[in-house]
Formats: sequence, structure tokens, C-alpha cells
Amino acid sequence: MLENLKEEVLEANLDLVRHGLVIFTWGNVSAIDRASGRVVIKPSGVEYEALKAEDMVVVDLDGNVVEGSLRPSSDTPTHLALYRAFEGIGGVVHTHSTYATTWAQAGLDIPSLGTTHADYFHRAVPCTGDMTHAQIDGDYEAETGAVIVERFRGLDPLHTPGVLVKNHGPFAWGRDAHEAVYNATVLEQVAKMAFVTKLLNPTAGIDPLLVEKHFRRKHGPDAYYGQK
Amino acid sequence: MLENLKEEVLEANLDLVRHGLVIFTWGNVSAIDRASGRVVIKPSGVEYEALKAEDMVVVDLDGNVVEGSLRPSSDTPTHLALYRAFEGIGGVVHTHSTYATTWAQAGLDIPSLGTTHADYFHRAVPCTGDMTHAQIDGDYEAETGAVIVERFRGLDPLHTPGVLVKNHGPFAWGRDAHEAVYNATVLEQVAKMAFVTKLLNPTAGIDPLLVEKHFRRKHGPDAYYGQK
Amino acid sequence: MLENLKEEVLEANLDLVRHGLVIFTWGNVSAIDRASGRVVIKPSGVEYEALKAEDMVVVDLDGNVVEGSLRPSSDTPTHLALYRAFEGIGGVVHTHSTYATTWAQAGLDIPSLGTTHADYFHRAVPCTGDMTHAQIDGDYEAETGAVIVERFRGLDPLHTPGVLVKNHGPFAWGRDAHEAVYNATVLEQVAKMAFVTKLLNPTAGIDPLLVEKHFRRKHGPDAYYGQK
Amino acid sequence: MLENLKEEVLEANLDLVRHGLVIFTWGNVSAIDRASGRVVIKPSGVEYEALKAEDMVVVDLDGNVVEGSLRPSSDTPTHLALYRAFEGIGGVVHTHSTYATTWAQAGLDIPSLGTTHADYFHRAVPCTGDMTHAQIDGDYEAETGAVIVERFRGLDPLHTPGVLVKNHGPFAWGRDAHEAVYNATVLEQVAKMAFVTKLLNPTAGIDPLLVEKHFRRKHGPDAYYGQK
Repeated sequence: MLENLKEEVLEANLDLVRHGLVIFTWGNVSAIDRASGRVVIKPSGVEYEALKAEDMVVVDLDGNVVEGSLRPSSDTPTHLALYRAFEGIGGVVHTHSTYATTWAQAGLDIPSLGTTHADYFHRAVPCTGDMTHAQIDGDYEAETGAVIVERFRGLDPLHTPGVLVKNHGPFAWGRDAHEAVYNATVLEQVAKMAFVTKLLNPTAGIDPLLVEKHFRRKHGPDAYYGQK
Repeated sequence: MLENLKEEVLEANLDLVRHGLVIFTWGNVSAIDRASGRVVIKPSGVEYEALKAEDMVVVDLDGNVVEGSLRPSSDTPTHLALYRAFEGIGGVVHTHSTYATTWAQAGLDIPSLGTTHADYFHRAVPCTGDMTHAQIDGDYEAETGAVIVERFRGLDPLHTPGVLVKNHGPFAWGRDAHEAVYNATVLEQVAKMAFVTKLLNPTAGIDPLLVEKHFRRKHGPDAYYGQK
Repeated sequence: MLENLKEEVLEANLDLVRHGLVIFTWGNVSAIDRASGRVVIKPSGVEYEALKAEDMVVVDLDGNVVEGSLRPSSDTPTHLALYRAFEGIGGVVHTHSTYATTWAQAGLDIPSLGTTHADYFHRAVPCTGDMTHAQIDGDYEAETGAVIVERFRGLDPLHTPGVLVKNHGPFAWGRDAHEAVYNATVLEQVAKMAFVTKLLNPTAGIDPLLVEKHFRRKHGPDAYYGQK
Repeated sequence: MLENLKEEVLEANLDLVRHGLVIFTWGNVSAIDRASGRVVIKPSGVEYEALKAEDMVVVDLDGNVVEGSLRPSSDTPTHLALYRAFEGIGGVVHTHSTYATTWAQAGLDIPSLGTTHADYFHRAVPCTGDMTHAQIDGDYEAETGAVIVERFRGLDPLHTPGVLVKNHGPFAWGRDAHEAVYNATVLEQVAKMAFVTKLLNPTAGIDPLLVEKHFRRKHGPDAYYGQK
């Protein structure tokens, strides 16, 4: 079942290690087959070196395991909440990458301070607010997803393909698992550069027109970056 | 004698290099066989590239060398003090890893600022106070252990499996040598992230309930992370 | 056409990855054949691992594609503006390298604070001012080049072979593609060291005579560094 | 002539790259044969990948080339000044390693803030003062050596085996070339840790007795670290 997608999800999980975004088991990638509504996700707590495509777990959008002998990532309910709410996305990533996580720990949005950010994220990367005690004590991982979705009210998730969960870490997404990992890598890099920039110049900012220009170079009908 | 344990301790020492926690000879790992009360530890001042399992030194809990032609790590009395005081631990690590050491040099506990910390350390990673001149001039390495044990009065060492010795560096531990190194690696990572977070937002904090939630996801009867 | 130059430009592009200056497709190198006025440049948005010499695109100084089936880098008009204005240069590099980009995001010149900087950059590495809305909405990449050239009025581009485009990132250049990449690497290193220096000592400065001494050790008639 | 020493100096130069202390040609190591008063040093401006033992240049203590077809490092007069003034040393290293160089650019001594520092450097790593214009315009590299020697008046160079030349970078030394590189590596690491410590706690300090204790663990008649 979904063998190609399992391979893609395996490769995307291994890319987390290659891009330096995770140590140990601190991350997970999933992808969805929109036709069947099935989600393929990394099993919980398994070391990356040992991962095989057949270890990937298939769940439906309600979280029922459809195939696989291992337990899915404990973050699965968060992934599913994002797939249900953000229709255009095909892959989701969660990491504890160093700099993105520190912005989450600081409880701050990552401001757009340069064209590197604007090329991929149309707006500041938003940080969620505090979860309520009812959310923490309740269905925690599903509530984490709900908090993200709430934070994106009025934002286009494909134009700002990542979020910081306060005191936790980043989630990123994309049209497929590969693009989700790509965006998670960009997010880590812009998080690091925004940190250094803020130490160099606490009042640094950017002209909104420059943001718009760069975002439109890569997105939408007038994009002209790459080979089309 | 204890050949399997020697192999484990050798591998754990080499993992310090693989995880980027030590350069030169700046670290050591030991493990205890609780049945016999024997401790296996790295020899003093030997380069990691040259280490072999048979170089590992076996000592008893009073520090007498039971087997081995090399001198044990100069930090052996500190390790032994921890094994005597913390009954549940099976492995101990000492490093001078960069960020954990800087918190020790700053004389500050590493505050819990995120779920990455809470997943492994129930509380702030404590920093010891200044040693007295009698302690420094006395049986220094044993006194270092005494200062750590004193600092952990009222704390569960397996729930907060690491400490900063002021102006010196971190010790970490776990149920075995492998877990001790794992915890030392996490300690370095949370130390780095706490440093960056404090520069981004000096007043950053975390809801204690969120700490509790994450710690219980991985520890205790209600844990649900991993494959059990 | 220009097969040797294509090889040089390919190697210089791959060196960006080897020197840690770029991830993904975030950089480009070009070189000019002054005799023919042809410029060889990386194609737009192609991953470095997949690049071959024959993928390099040949354009004239007005930006017309003379040879090549791929689209040239979207930054081509900036490169061309530099070749037209700075007669002595033979290679141009653009990256989003971490520390140079953060100075650009901070909108600050990188001050000369040591001999490492002075050995390669005679002056502070200048940061351009804000682009006007007409420039952003107009022929943006060509205008980026114009802003750089404007900023270098009165400066010798071969004595200060790099610039920060505000809120964007660095461009560097040299007598050929190899030297341009070399200078881009130095620029990243001095950017990092200037950042750390400013945090250690916000009032740090350098004696202008020491700058002059070091620059003249490596440049001009009295140079005595290297094997000549 | 001095073939073994040439091999040692070659290896020590290559170790600069392995330890991440230099890029390009930004460093040099020498060693002295005290019996003959001959110094073996890296040639100027040659890439490390291309270096061979026979490229090493042999000079006397007055700087005359005794053997070798290449020009010796431009920093040779500084090395020679150190060999003439510091009788116990056998190897000298110069680098532009990132964090040590930033303390030099900041014009600040690296304070002893922990046992990592005290294990190798008995005191703060001193930073020289500004050179006079006569020194800069005169025999610059020899004057650089003179400034270092002046700064060490009253200090034991083997107990504090390194220095920061203001606005330039570190020199380190040891009983031979290998130990000099070792000390240069330690210097870079303590420079980084002191930087982070000062950001975490600007008033961080250390008990002088703890410094003394750690220094004596590794140096002098009561040393008990290592295998003797």
C-alpha cells in the first residue's frame, strides 16, 4: 500500500539528518495521499539509521492505523490536524532544529528581515500563543494542531509554510514531503540569520515592497526564478 | 573480567567523539556492574583513537584498581561518588562540551525553556555552588562528587540526569553508559538552545504544566513515546 | 564556445558548496571573457549536484543568451552591471552566506576590525542603501547592480572586492571566478568575526596604519606575501 | 637536513586544517632544532593540500634561509623572536582561528573562567597593546615578536603558552610543533567558551585557588593527570 509514498517519506526523514535538522529521533516527516486520505508517517522513537520504507506507518485522517506493525509518531495527531485544515499541503515536518526552536522558546515570531526569508515565507513565521491547561491536559497533540490552525486564521499556509509552536519547536509543510523538508531547512537558516541580525541591529527591518517583490519572483503567475 | 561492559564503555567513550562532545582527551565515561560493585572506566589521558576495550580500567567502589595496567581517569573519584549516592544509575559521563561548560562557567542553572529540555530533564539542570578551599585542597575529585550529591538533595537524579560543576563542566548519567552519553548529548543541545533563547528574550519562561506533560510523555507509567 | 571558462565557472560554483557558503541553489558564480565580451553563468535554480559544464549559460553583456538551453541565473543582470562598471574584474559571486547576509539584513557596513579583513578588503565592506520603489518595481536585478555601482563611487572595486546588498546578501568578485569565490569565503569569515567582536567589545576599532600595512603586504608594488 | 623535523612541521601544519583552525593559507607552524639553532617553517602562501615535507624552509635564528627553494612564511621574523626570547619552547603556531582572533580584534585578554582554561593556561591569555607607528612602518613582523615578548615580561611562556596580537590574531607555542598546535586548539576552544560565558554572565569569574589546583594537576612536580 502506497509503496512509493513510503519511499518518499523515508527519504524525507533521512534528509532531516542530512540537513542537520535532527539528532537521535527528534523529528518526523509525513505525507498524504489525497486521493485515498491516507497518511504515511515515521514510526515513533525509531533511530533514523535503522529506518526502512516498510517501517512507515499508514494511518487515516482520524488517526486509525491502516497498515504497519509499529506505532506511528506520537506527533501524528498534529500532522493530521494540519492535513485536515490546510487543503493544499501534501507533506508535514516536525523538528527540534536549533535556531527555529530557540525562537519558539523565546515565544517570538521570526520577523522577515531579508530576501532569503521573503523568497520562501511571505510573512513572519508565526509563533503560537500559550496552550491552555485544558489543551495540555486534553488530547495534547491534536490540540497542538488546533493551536497552529487557529494561529493561521487569515494566513495562507502555502505562502508561509511553517510555524513555531511556543516553547516547543517548528512545524513546516509543503506540497509534498520533499518540499516540507526543504522549507524546514530554510526555516532553520532564516531563524539563525534573524537571531544574528537582531543582535547586530535590534531595530533592523525591511521594506514590505521588497518582501513582495522577492516572494513574487518565486511564487504565483509572475514567478521567473528557476527553469519553470 | 566484565568484557561486555568494557566494550560498552569503550563504545560510549567513542560516542563522545562522534557526537562532538569532546576533543583530545577531554571526557570520560564509566559504567558499573551493580552485582559485583565493579566500575569500568576510561584510562587517564589516552587519546580516543588509540583506545581499546582492554585498556579500560576496572575499579571497586572505593577506587582500588581491580584490573588494568593503566591509571584510571583522574575523575574516577567523582564517578564513584555518584554511583554510591545515586543507586539507580549505571553509567556516568564527564565532558567539557562547549555550551554546557559555558553555563558552568557562568555559574548558572540551565533553565527549562522548552519541551526539548522537559523531554529529558524534569527540572533546570542545576549548577553547583563554589567549592570551599578545604574541598579544593583536599581530595578534590571526591569532593567534586560530594558537591554534586549535595546539590541533588531533594532531586531525583534519574529525572534530572545531569549537573554543571561550577567553573568546570557537565556530568551526566543514565541507566547505562549509552544512556549517559545520550543524556550528555541532550544536555549540550539544551544548553546551546537556552543560551540563544536568553539572548533573544531574557524573560523567556515556560508553563510548568507543559514541562510536566512532556516529561510524563517519556517517563513513568503514562509514557507513550516510542515503541514501548 | 568558451569550454575552459565553463569548466572554471562550474568548479567555482561547486566550490561555493565546498566552502559552506550555499545550500540548495542559493548562490551563483559567473566569469567573463573580456576579449569577446561573453559571460558564462550558472543556470537558474539548478541543484549543484546535478550541474555539468555544458549546463552553463553564455550571455553577452546586454543579457542576450548566446549559447545554452537553460535559463541563466535570475541574478544575471546584476552580474552584468558589475562587469560593465568594474573593468578589472573577471568573476562575480552571489551567495546568501550566513554572516555576510546578516550584516546585509542589519543594514550595516562590515567594519575593518583586524588584519584578516585588511589582508583582503582595504575598507569596510560597504552595505548599499534602500532601493527606491521604482527600482524594486522596475528592472530589479539590473537596478541591484546599479545600486552596487553607485555605492562604489570613489572606491576601487578590486581593493574592496565585495558588497552587501541591503536586506539581501553579499556579492563578491575578483580577477577570475576562482578569486571571486575566494573573496566570498573571506567575506563570510570576516563577517562572522566582526559579529563576535562587536558583541565582545562594541567600541572595538583598528589603527588605519595597521590596515594600510596589511593591505600593502598582499597588494601593490611592495607586496611580499606568498611566492610572488 | 633536519628531515624528521620537516616531517613533524608538515604534520603540524596539516593538523591546523584537521582541527579547523585555518582556511586557505591562514596559518603557519614552525619548530626549532635547539642543538643547531635551525628553524623549520612553512613556506609563504602555499596551500595546505599541496604541501610536502621538502617544501619546508630551514632558516637560522637571524632569518637567513639555510635550505629550501621557497620563501619562508612572512611571519618568520615573529617566530624567530619567540624562539630567541622563550628558551623552553620548541614549536610556534600562528593562526586566524575564529574566536581567538575575535578576542584579539576586541583588544581583550581572554580571562580564565573555568578549569578547561586553567588546565592549559595558568593565566588569562594576554592581548598585546597597540603597536606604535614606528613598529608598524619598521620591521613589522620582527616588531610583532618584540611586542609579544614585551607583553610576557614577568610571565612564564610555557605556563601561558599563547598570546593575542591586538587586531591580528593568536600565536601559540609549546615544547614542540605538535604541542604548539595542541595549545592553539585549546586556545580557540577556551576563546569560544569565554565569549559565550561573557554573554551569559558578564560578571562571571573563578576562584584563583581552583585555577591553581587545575593547573597543578597537569603541570609541575605534583601533576597526576594522564599516564605520566
